[in-house]
Amino acid sequence: MHILVTNDDGVQAPGLLALAEAMRPLGRVSVVAPDRNWSIAGHAKTLSRPLRVNEVRLADGSQALSCDGAPSDCVALALMGLLDEKPDLVVSGINPTANMGDDITYSGTVANAMEAAISGLPAVAVSVDGLDSSCKTVEFAAAAHFGRRVVQQVIDNGLPLRVYLNVNVPCLPLGEILGCVVTRQGKRLYFDELIKRIDPFGRPYYWIGGDPPGGEGEADTDVGALAAGYVSITPLQLDLTEHHEIENLSRRQW
Amino acid sequence: MHILVTNDDGVQAPGLLALAEAMRPLGRVSVVAPDRNWSIAGHAKTLSRPLRVNEVRLADGSQALSCDGAPSDCVALALMGLLDEKPDLVVSGINPTANMGDDITYSGTVANAMEAAISGLPAVAVSVDGLDSSCKTVEFAAAAHFGRRVVQQVIDNGLPLRVYLNVNVPCLPLGEILGCVVTRQGKRLYFDELIKRIDPFGRPYYWIGGDPPGGEGEADTDVGALAAGYVSITPLQLDLTEHHEIENLSRRQW
Repeated sequence: MHILVTNDDGVQAPGLLALAEAMRPLGRVSVVAPDRNWSIAGHAKTLSRPLRVNEVRLADGSQALSCDGAPSDCVALALMGLLDEKPDLVVSGINPTANMGDDITYSGTVANAMEAAISGLPAVAVSVDGLDSSCKTVEFAAAAHFGRRVVQQVIDNGLPLRVYLNVNVPCLPLGEILGCVVTRQGKRLYFDELIKRIDPFGRPYYWIGGDPPGGEGEADTDVGALAAGYVSITPLQLDLTEHHEIENLSRRQW
Repeated sequence: MHILVTNDDGVQAPGLLALAEAMRPLGRVSVVAPDRNWSIAGHAKTLSRPLRVNEVRLADGSQALSCDGAPSDCVALALMGLLDEKPDLVVSGINPTANMGDDITYSGTVANAMEAAISGLPAVAVSVDGLDSSCKTVEFAAAAHFGRRVVQQVIDNGLPLRVYLNVNVPCLPLGEILGCVVTRQGKRLYFDELIKRIDPFGRPYYWIGGDPPGGEGEADTDVGALAAGYVSITPLQLDLTEHHEIENLSRRQW
């Protein structure tokens, strides 16, 4: 079992090391990750310029590759032949903030799993809910533990083709987490605000600011599971069609 | 009716001007688009740095705003208060290549419509199939015509909340297009290839290369509709959950 470990926070992010260490008991681990932080990068592919790859060392001395493309470029390179042996499974994270609700469409962490699923590989994205108001410091130990459990389960029983898992872990000590539940994508509430400032030269610039997102906590969703102290495992897929509207819209005169 | 026109190819792309001109008969048009080409950018949000906005003129002399963020940042700024009046509808394009099958997850053109849908606005992405082997030169006239027809229909009859439309137009003269069909997302086939080259200083660099993507043309899909000479209108949504797997995966011991 050859496991590709990647992320969107950059190759030196502590969550990546925690995830790589959690995967080592399960097989051979290769790390390929972006050379800088690409949070909220979406699912990108870089065709306009060539990509560079460098050998680096993680904080535990282990070898990794960094790539100067987007997170999903790093996955694409790794799956297209950059590594001597093609990975069997891709794990992305550990992201220090949750990826729930519509976050999923922006998340580089999830986009890495999506990229793997497009290539036909099983994939798991792992995030910890570090923006939760009760979270004092983001600890990766519990998320690494559950990430390993989920990946072990995927190794043992597989995943349907083009299905990938989005795992969110509460920011709680391991002993306080109540277990895992399989959920659907819930509803994020965003409080983004346009903040206009003036630079020292009199010219305006804009921040996308505002309060951190909240969520509507229906029990069977990612948001609800985390609020109740459970790890959320959401099966995701690649078809964005709103199938329920096809018949309805077909009746219109276009 | 205040229509925001945007794209992912940059504010000076000819497809943007063709779309803006097509929308003018339908209402007030504001143009906010990225200051450079961001093709295949995915759904990004820039929180790590402030964004700049500049007044520019399109090739017809009309005023537009360019923004130095990702395409979806431009939409976010426009919807968060950058414009004096909030838009009622967002149209993105015209992209010079089709966005079908798994392209949808990478596409900045589609991500703009997704961003609008997250904000609760109706949105339409428009692309023309310029990579089709029978396409000599990419003409935007037919795509602009059908883009206007689709947007007019959305203005007249609305769209369900959080549903947005992905419109792909064959690269054919207007008179040769057979009409519009409502489709589901089809299957793209990718032929990406890792190309390794050596720079003048002896160091390797990598291109994501290979042949343009193909597709499996099932008749009720975007790929199939275009292959048969029809405009494809695919209703998309924001929920990536693979609902069919929730029950199945819930039975596993996680």
